Amino acid sequence: MNEAALPPDDRGLAYGDGVFETVLVRDGRPVLWEEHLARLARGCTQLGFSPPCRDELDVLPGKAPQGLSVLKLIVTRGSGGRGYLAPADPAPRLLVQHLPFAPAETRWREGVRVRLCALQLGIQPLLAGLKHLNRLENVLARKEWSDAAVAEGLLCDSDGHLIEATCMNLFWLRNGRLETPKLDRCGVAGTLRQALLAEHSISEVEAGPSRLQEVEALWLGNSLQGLWPVTRLDDSEGRALITWAIGERHRRLQNDAQRLLGYPLLP
Amino acid sequence: MNEAALPPDDRGLAYGDGVFETVLVRDGRPVLWEEHLARLARGCTQLGFSPPCRDELDVLPGKAPQGLSVLKLIVTRGSGGRGYLAPADPAPRLLVQHLPFAPAETRWREGVRVRLCALQLGIQPLLAGLKHLNRLENVLARKEWSDAAVAEGLLCDSDGHLIEATCMNLFWLRNGRLETPKLDRCGVAGTLRQALLAEHSISEVEAGPSRLQEVEALWLGNSLQGLWPVTRLDDSEGRALITWAIGERHRRLQNDAQRLLGYPLLP
Repeated sequence: MNEAALPPDDRGLAYGDGVFETVLVRDGRPVLWEEHLARLARGCTQLGFSPPCRDELDVLPGKAPQGLSVLKLIVTRGSGGRGYLAPADPAPRLLVQHLPFAPAETRWREGVRVRLCALQLGIQPLLAGLKHLNRLENVLARKEWSDAAVAEGLLCDSDGHLIEATCMNLFWLRNGRLETPKLDRCGVAGTLRQALLAEHSISEVEAGPSRLQEVEALWLGNSLQGLWPVTRLDDSEGRALITWAIGERHRRLQNDAQRLLGYPLLP
Repeated sequence: MNEAALPPDDRGLAYGDGVFETVLVRDGRPVLWEEHLARLARGCTQLGFSPPCRDELDVLPGKAPQGLSVLKLIVTRGSGGRGYLAPADPAPRLLVQHLPFAPAETRWREGVRVRLCALQLGIQPLLAGLKHLNRLENVLARKEWSDAAVAEGLLCDSDGHLIEATCMNLFWLRNGRLETPKLDRCGVAGTLRQALLAEHSISEVEAGPSRLQEVEALWLGNSLQGLWPVTRLDDSEGRALITWAIGERHRRLQNDAQRLLGYPLLP
């Protein structure tokens, strides 16, 4: 697979015709690597081209600087085809970036304030769960607020079901049971979510934002940041809707995430 | 605006964070230029960054080769920001390509066979009408058939309303009146469509594919190809649903498009 610079006719630029991964790397070792590779392969397959071969990917984390960093992989269908018509024999392109990274540790301890976004995600089962390059909805949702005190925005789909935050998945505890939104019609199925689902009994559910009135704890998380407990939820105009006190019930799931990502446990 | 090569952190590649235009150019003169510039500006504004200045764009068609060609413009939000969070002061990037082009003239005369696509477009009013860089739905829809005898695929949204073809707009004649799908929830508002709407009484309607059983004529069109009369519509498995004979009623609207695009009139 070609690992060079991007020519102007690349379909990743032209149409967002590709997928990406942002992988936490610690001292040259990738975190949740199998989950990232699996999602990357699933995405390429769903779009109809071959994923990079494993050997080519396995050497990349070793090239990261010491300490923590993010390995960003973009795989596009490459050039060619005629307009939207994909080339019959695509030559996918792999782009690799190593980016500096430090998690927002304060948010592990103190939790975060989040808000509901007004934007509703379009429903597209053929792309649901994938980390593809068509992310304008996320960009527009993230533009809904500029208050630095608000850490994330929660997104519903056009049927009013809670799906995700702009760059994180949602988890909550309701009647003592863990739940997370079903992602079979839109949203990105995060690798931390994948790893937590494999370890825990977490139900994938369809629920609107009113469900959050009933939850004992709410977290947002991804494979770079771990889990943030939510202490306050605002509506899309910034008015407080619900508050939660951080308690022992938050720390258990958080510490499972900390373990999965190699971060220190919280007291 | 920077007109250089694309760095790997450009948001157009990372998120499809930008818009594009494909402009028919004849002997250095752009066709439907005002419509293209207006849509480009509308797209940039809706995404939240400044469009390229008009002077910079106006000189580009003159650099095209003699005869017919396509001027492809891509405008991205540029680099920067933090993840999906757009930079506060974006420096958009303009990418310019001159591509060879010849219209499919046979299709003007003989019409085309098209099919219904199984893919349903997600509903996103915030992006509806724009020619943005998130085009995976179009790419996937175009992958639904490989039979070269099928010229285009018709797309409905997830509510079952007819919207567009993969790279063309739809027009039909019903009870002697022209209609075209409303594009306020998804789809691309083509510049030929825009120009025809300005000249004709064409109703923008919400209708499912069953509406096509009632139409006297159906056309697909865009600003590069003009209008193709549809002679046969297949379902998404390739079985014939409806056929139409090409008649005088087809030629009138086609010739309005031919005039708008500077193509020869059809007898």
